[in-house]
Amino acid sequence: MTSRHPAGAQPITDAAALGADELGRIDAYWRACNYLCAGMIYLRDNPLLRAPLRPEHFKRRLLGHWGSDPGQTFTWVHLNRAIRKYDLDMIYLSGPGHGAPAVIANCYLEGTYSEVYTDKSQDEAGLLKLFRAFSFPGQLGSHCTPEVPGSIHEGGELGYSVSHAFGAAFDNPDLIVSVVVGDGEAETGPLATSWHSNKFLNPIRDGAVLPILHLNGYKIANPTLLSRITPQELEDLFKGYGWTPYLVEGDAPSLMHQRMAATVDACVRQIRAIRAEARRTGEPKRPRWPMIILRSPKGWTGPKEVDGHRVEGSWRAHQVPVPDVQSNPEHLRIVEQWMRSYRPEELFDEHGTLVAELRDLPPKGARRMSANPHANGGKLYKRLDLPGFRDYAVPSSSPGTKSASPTATLGKFLRDVMRRNMNNFRLFSPDENASNRLQGVYEVSSKTWLAEIRPEDADGTDISPDGRVMEMLSEHTLEGWLEGYLLTGRHGIFNTYEAFVHIIDSMYNQHAKWLEKAKLQSAWRPPIASLNLLISSLVWRQDHNGFTHQDPGFLDLVSNKSAEITRIYLPPDANCLLSVVDHCLRSMDYVNVIVADKQLHLVYLDIEAAIDHCTKGIGIWKWASNDGGEDPDVVIASAGDILTREALAAVAILRQHFPDMKIRFVNVVDLYRLQPDTEHPHGLSDKDFDSLFTKNKPVIFNFHGYPWLIHKFTYRRANHANIHVRGYKEKGNINTPLELAIKNQVDRFNLAIDVIDRVPGLQGHGAHLKEWLKDQIVANLLYADTEGIDKPEIRNWQWPAT
Amino acid sequence: MTSRHPAGAQPITDAAALGADELGRIDAYWRACNYLCAGMIYLRDNPLLRAPLRPEHFKRRLLGHWGSDPGQTFTWVHLNRAIRKYDLDMIYLSGPGHGAPAVIANCYLEGTYSEVYTDKSQDEAGLLKLFRAFSFPGQLGSHCTPEVPGSIHEGGELGYSVSHAFGAAFDNPDLIVSVVVGDGEAETGPLATSWHSNKFLNPIRDGAVLPILHLNGYKIANPTLLSRITPQELEDLFKGYGWTPYLVEGDAPSLMHQRMAATVDACVRQIRAIRAEARRTGEPKRPRWPMIILRSPKGWTGPKEVDGHRVEGSWRAHQVPVPDVQSNPEHLRIVEQWMRSYRPEELFDEHGTLVAELRDLPPKGARRMSANPHANGGKLYKRLDLPGFRDYAVPSSSPGTKSASPTATLGKFLRDVMRRNMNNFRLFSPDENASNRLQGVYEVSSKTWLAEIRPEDADGTDISPDGRVMEMLSEHTLEGWLEGYLLTGRHGIFNTYEAFVHIIDSMYNQHAKWLEKAKLQSAWRPPIASLNLLISSLVWRQDHNGFTHQDPGFLDLVSNKSAEITRIYLPPDANCLLSVVDHCLRSMDYVNVIVADKQLHLVYLDIEAAIDHCTKGIGIWKWASNDGGEDPDVVIASAGDILTREALAAVAILRQHFPDMKIRFVNVVDLYRLQPDTEHPHGLSDKDFDSLFTKNKPVIFNFHGYPWLIHKFTYRRANHANIHVRGYKEKGNINTPLELAIKNQVDRFNLAIDVIDRVPGLQGHGAHLKEWLKDQIVANLLYADTEGIDKPEIRNWQWPAT
Repeated sequence: MTSRHPAGAQPITDAAALGADELGRIDAYWRACNYLCAGMIYLRDNPLLRAPLRPEHFKRRLLGHWGSDPGQTFTWVHLNRAIRKYDLDMIYLSGPGHGAPAVIANCYLEGTYSEVYTDKSQDEAGLLKLFRAFSFPGQLGSHCTPEVPGSIHEGGELGYSVSHAFGAAFDNPDLIVSVVVGDGEAETGPLATSWHSNKFLNPIRDGAVLPILHLNGYKIANPTLLSRITPQELEDLFKGYGWTPYLVEGDAPSLMHQRMAATVDACVRQIRAIRAEARRTGEPKRPRWPMIILRSPKGWTGPKEVDGHRVEGSWRAHQVPVPDVQSNPEHLRIVEQWMRSYRPEELFDEHGTLVAELRDLPPKGARRMSANPHANGGKLYKRLDLPGFRDYAVPSSSPGTKSASPTATLGKFLRDVMRRNMNNFRLFSPDENASNRLQGVYEVSSKTWLAEIRPEDADGTDISPDGRVMEMLSEHTLEGWLEGYLLTGRHGIFNTYEAFVHIIDSMYNQHAKWLEKAKLQSAWRPPIASLNLLISSLVWRQDHNGFTHQDPGFLDLVSNKSAEITRIYLPPDANCLLSVVDHCLRSMDYVNVIVADKQLHLVYLDIEAAIDHCTKGIGIWKWASNDGGEDPDVVIASAGDILTREALAAVAILRQHFPDMKIRFVNVVDLYRLQPDTEHPHGLSDKDFDSLFTKNKPVIFNFHGYPWLIHKFTYRRANHANIHVRGYKEKGNINTPLELAIKNQVDRFNLAIDVIDRVPGLQGHGAHLKEWLKDQIVANLLYADTEGIDKPEIRNWQWPAT
Repeated sequence: MTSRHPAGAQPITDAAALGADELGRIDAYWRACNYLCAGMIYLRDNPLLRAPLRPEHFKRRLLGHWGSDPGQTFTWVHLNRAIRKYDLDMIYLSGPGHGAPAVIANCYLEGTYSEVYTDKSQDEAGLLKLFRAFSFPGQLGSHCTPEVPGSIHEGGELGYSVSHAFGAAFDNPDLIVSVVVGDGEAETGPLATSWHSNKFLNPIRDGAVLPILHLNGYKIANPTLLSRITPQELEDLFKGYGWTPYLVEGDAPSLMHQRMAATVDACVRQIRAIRAEARRTGEPKRPRWPMIILRSPKGWTGPKEVDGHRVEGSWRAHQVPVPDVQSNPEHLRIVEQWMRSYRPEELFDEHGTLVAELRDLPPKGARRMSANPHANGGKLYKRLDLPGFRDYAVPSSSPGTKSASPTATLGKFLRDVMRRNMNNFRLFSPDENASNRLQGVYEVSSKTWLAEIRPEDADGTDISPDGRVMEMLSEHTLEGWLEGYLLTGRHGIFNTYEAFVHIIDSMYNQHAKWLEKAKLQSAWRPPIASLNLLISSLVWRQDHNGFTHQDPGFLDLVSNKSAEITRIYLPPDANCLLSVVDHCLRSMDYVNVIVADKQLHLVYLDIEAAIDHCTKGIGIWKWASNDGGEDPDVVIASAGDILTREALAAVAILRQHFPDMKIRFVNVVDLYRLQPDTEHPHGLSDKDFDSLFTKNKPVIFNFHGYPWLIHKFTYRRANHANIHVRGYKEKGNINTPLELAIKNQVDRFNLAIDVIDRVPGLQGHGAHLKEWLKDQIVANLLYADTEGIDKPEIRNWQWPAT
């Protein structure tokens, strides 16, 4: 069958896009790639088959994935042709989970691999080392790990290739991001919605994304859905997603080369025409970008049949297509025949180097997809031009007497960050940017929107093709966009509701792992901007969303990853949030998690005090303490804006009733300060920790998250047995703020009771106060349950000026 | 415009589907619903507007969501008509996040609400109580919480309505599951791929799902994507997903009633025709099921404009459409005019009860969607018919000398569970069922597949329309299916790779919260089967997947949820796994998380010993201990199959070298045993804990997950300071099993060193052994790095028979 363009435009014919000579060379180069893939999976000796294959030439343990390799090498080779023909700036993302051999093979043949890993030289010895390193302990993985040059997408976990690709394309007007999407990956939710990213790409200011949906028909052990629906459904689906799909289908290499060359040509021309038109007219309409559906057999060109079972074109080609080669002579024969079918003797010269006429084929220098600097974003990293954040501070003369929304305050700062970095910084949120009170940025930039815009949108909807605030109701897509944007050297912040940040738990895990490997084991990858996650609409203010919106456990997940790349900040007020975000925007190679509420909260520190406090990350608030620098009777500590307020209110009650009790108030911004310095670079030494929390006094710690995290961080401290932590314990519903606090015992009254119960000698004196506190709890619950709001003295509480 | 059927079948005309009388009554009933929605959001007095509205009639704080309500009530009312007309068994899932008023209104008008909550009677007093309870602290949420009769889908977090709907439809051949999908929700990844669920629904044995995509155009603060693509794209998209979409578009109520009635009629007839044809022929072909695209304004019938801003048909209608009604007389006037436009005086009689002619309109008894037992699955729950699991045990005479794959052993048991429960039990996995070695079930049931089946599939692909094993490469869809299946009273197990279970972290959170509220606060919901999550392909065996596949942190997440519903099991061998799974399949209202590897592992306990051990959940393995029941010198403990093996190997080394040292070996199956009994119902008393772990002896604990979880569970125990935990600490790559263990210090050699370092008096004697152990580590790493596998004595290690 011919490749066809189902959307009604010009069909792409098979007619000779390639001359016989070019066809021959492209096919030879492709054979070289496939040969390398097979070699990586099978050989530990005789890498060029200069001798007949013998059992001892094979790896002892056969590991690796063959299935998607030949389709991917095919794609790469044809993209290479287009890069040279049109002088394209292009990178390649490999979506199929385990297609690394395809990428590594090209990377090696283009010379990039040997440049980065000099022992893997472009000769027989280097080739053998490459083969041996693949899927060998401690060495080369079978997905595109950070160690693979040219990769910004690992694919260990499936679903994010298209959103990563769009992230890479934003604000890179000359770039084309090619992305191979596996038809297994295409079944995942994150991938299924990410096709809609085309409604967020502006052809004037952004690059293009060229998806190649690789329908090879099978997953690990099942057919794929998209390969088993009707051709009409497949076409409809991608037209419905807003793309112009081109089908390249078949298995005869020479025909397929012609089809793919013609189709890639057509796609590049279409991309160029879209760009030219948009840039000429200045009107960034949403085009129907081209995409390719490549329908080729799984394990294409590999063994057709093994032991009577079909392998090529079957799920049996997914991993190692022929097992037991050392013990089964027939299997050995199949592999030998297969590998020799690529005619390595024509492809590699006597040194084991690719023959000269094929060496000429791929692009050169930074045009190589394996060496394109966009795939090593640190090389393109530019520092943000940041306004002085002090200018956005909330003036505060007396601690805790004035209110401001932390995130609204931040919104004004981010507005001007945006203004100064109009092609280098974006803000990402799942339809929650305004809900999280960051709408200040709209003064400078609206929300990106290439879908239909209607007259009524002029009334405050703030959407535009030129917008730089990214909002779509898909946390997965947003996180993927941001990761792609960062990995290609830019900057951004993702803000989301606290409870639903768990939607991207797994993406966080994968990005954190990528960062760790890139940072610690790939020195050739310079640092990139940190991934900044701003968590707002917090657990503690869910007056009508209730129990489903109450989960502060993302921090637990964060703390499971390497101390080298994780940071957690809980700024207690608006000024501290400014200081923290400024710091995070300057930082590199971290995941910074910032927890800050959107509602009005007291401001405790003026901006200079806030900077000092955030720089230290933890400290005694002298104005709230009365220990006079001496040994206190009790330490009251807090982390988190809402929790700090209740802790301070408890201090106020206690100081009123027990003026002689020495209370020290400690606030924690940088949560990792609590860990020992042996565990985290931000950790305090035991000496410093003890100087804050004492070695033997009761500590009442009011924490934003689940209480255990504080124990996790402090269980090795001398005073751990005395650290009593309050936090969220899954007691909630739609509640007033105080009610929710009381249910979880993080409120001022329960905290004061905790102190009475724990400070030696207070139990007698405190009995009366304790009764009063219990009465307060009952009275406040009753009030909230009757009135639907908290008492005015709770809502309007301020730190009593001293 | 007319509603139309774009797929080329009969167009649905507007011609009178409804007579004038029926139209009038349907519209009146709809007005009553909408009136109730507005009343819930606004009123605390004067519920029937018998007096002019005054500021004091309004709630002090206005909370709730209006936007999707009228479209949902419209849908419900028309479905009610179809239920009566065709005597349908139908339930309703509300996908839009905050559409609870629409569901509650219908639930109340149908009488179900008053049956469950008798104080909310069907009169003026009850109506007022209902209004006051909505969005009031501690009472009714604005999404469909478990407290709402008729709901099995809460919608606090978006994305799962369609997969829940399919889960409910499986094996319910007479049921139609209607599901309203919000166009905001439709942007999420999980929802976007769940449309493909139609390739897994067998029209002979399963029910039908009737999706109503509610294109009301706006999210919280943005337009929705699907409302802003071209009509052709929209049509193509859903045809591409394999549906037959019917469009119902407009805003004039009487026209819309005719369109919707005609369209619902057409859909029901089409569903019936599909069923009849499939059941007549016995050939379960994949039909193109009908779906409805309902395009109506957001906040339909609400205020058109407030303060010069468009409200109806805008994102401004999302929550409370008119604010400040107490202080702004013009706003009060708008709300009064709006609410009176529903003509409550025609709808409710002098008692405040729905007038008789409208009371007749909805279905009766269990045909009411608010009272359908399928939406209260415990009512339909049937115990599984379980085979005796002892019959599947691996015979074991001497501990730790024989190997078996735990999951492969389980697969045979599950095969027979499947055989005995062919319409009540399903197995769910993201293309990993065979990879996780559970393929034994295919002997009884293949994998469900309604997409194309090809001749070559006969060769071992195991797919069929009659299959009961659910495999699609979307963890979200699978988890959603399973939840829907369980919530409608059936049974199932989800198995997935350990690292990627994080993909459904957030779904776990939401289901756990649902279960907790249903169990503890909704006595009218009888218990349902537990959600069983089998985690396999563990972190510790990632010989070629490497670092991306290494995250055992799901257990941390699990442990953040209520002790009332969470259970974690780490069976150490195949026989223990059998015992644990049998227990879990009998349990109700829990989330059971079971961690078990698929590779060959030693069998330590014969089946009777395994049952005894698993019933206790924790215990001393006497055969591995030499403390003779006395005070030991050290306790070596383990949880997890792989970790148990290394811990035992350490014991063997130590006993050989220090025959006089008294070692106690403790194995933990039921992880919550470690928590105090005050924290978890499975927790041990301090006395029992101390009797196992002593009060003062060193404990070396080898744990499957991140080490911290053991500290979290034990930090209140007397001996906590002496509990030294080893576990995964993010040190990995592609590694041999021993190499990975060594990097994370959970291997036999490091554990033995830990013992030498911690047992008093051993440091001198042990110095020589310690050097030997260190040499072993180096030698083994060297061997693995050279050979690519572990030494034979490691691979073949067995517990030395005594």
